[in-house]
Amino acid sequence: MRTSDIERLIQLLAKLPGLGPRSARRAALFLVKRRDGLLRPLAAALTAAADNVHPCSRCGNLDGRDPCAICQDARRDASLICIVEDVADIWALERAGVFAGRYHALGGVLSALDGVGPEDLNIAGLLARARAPEVSEVILAMNATVDGQTTAHYISDLLAECEVTITRLAHGVPVGGELDYLDDGTLGAALNSRRPL
Amino acid sequence: MRTSDIERLIQLLAKLPGLGPRSARRAALFLVKRRDGLLRPLAAALTAAADNVHPCSRCGNLDGRDPCAICQDARRDASLICIVEDVADIWALERAGVFAGRYHALGGVLSALDGVGPEDLNIAGLLARARAPEVSEVILAMNATVDGQTTAHYISDLLAECEVTITRLAHGVPVGGELDYLDDGTLGAALNSRRPL
Repeated sequence: MRTSDIERLIQLLAKLPGLGPRSARRAALFLVKRRDGLLRPLAAALTAAADNVHPCSRCGNLDGRDPCAICQDARRDASLICIVEDVADIWALERAGVFAGRYHALGGVLSALDGVGPEDLNIAGLLARARAPEVSEVILAMNATVDGQTTAHYISDLLAECEVTITRLAHGVPVGGELDYLDDGTLGAALNSRRPL
Repeated sequence: MRTSDIERLIQLLAKLPGLGPRSARRAALFLVKRRDGLLRPLAAALTAAADNVHPCSRCGNLDGRDPCAICQDARRDASLICIVEDVADIWALERAGVFAGRYHALGGVLSALDGVGPEDLNIAGLLARARAPEVSEVILAMNATVDGQTTAHYISDLLAECEVTITRLAHGVPVGGELDYLDDGTLGAALNSRRPL
């Protein structure tokens, strides 16, 4: 019979994405066997994150400061705003190290199915930022899904009144990708957006 | 740029079995977005487990009490000891609700490859328990792996001097299993251990 303490730990771990009941049990046992090496540090890290990590009031990124480190970094190009769906996308672009402007995380995408409307996304803040005189270009970097592209369309309509260039990420063959494995939509987009050598 | 707080949380989450760097990032974001619903409760549950859950000094089960709830339960048959590799196996048998005796978790298996010898397992405590007059049968319930069965042999040799019946779990076709999908070893064991109808 398991104690309520470990039972409760398993129940909470099972709520994490990627962990089911069985892997949550495995993780709980793993943790209890590493009491000082992992269990207590993880508890402390969770408490620290709960206390210190908050969304940036400007761009929506998660950080210990507000505005976040990216918004405060004077070396980054303030004339470029890259609009992404979620904080995870900011992290992905930062890992790639391919963008030196600022970000704006919407906090989701429009979705009739999930009942997400424009009022649920951080759009008002985006329009205010896009109207600032230093901003010259806004890059739509939503996922290449139906909901992502619908949201991109909606936002580009709203941004039309602001004096900014609106661009979107290119669609095409992923680097390292093989044509034989790609879907028709990607092949069509890659062909339509072909570029002179 | 991620803060050190959330970076550290991701690093620790990535150490859990079943979570890699990508799923650890997903889990960290998921947690920070559910600050009061999941993040703080999980931190509290981890701390409670670190403070309260300890191995039972008698059988090795993890519990808030010592001896554990199973060892203290007078309704369970004290004449039967089921020897398992790990606490997870106790939980599996308890979930199945098929055993009403007591358990003994070795805390691993003998493994030359991993450098696990008899002194690393909870064997001395087992022999002391098996010598107690009320114990009549010891069931070897190690995994049906090479290491598990090696350990079972080793322990059955040690137990030969105690006045107990030594049994092991039956090997055969899993309930619901199809012959076509079973390996040769299982089919052979099932045929050799066939029983009259």
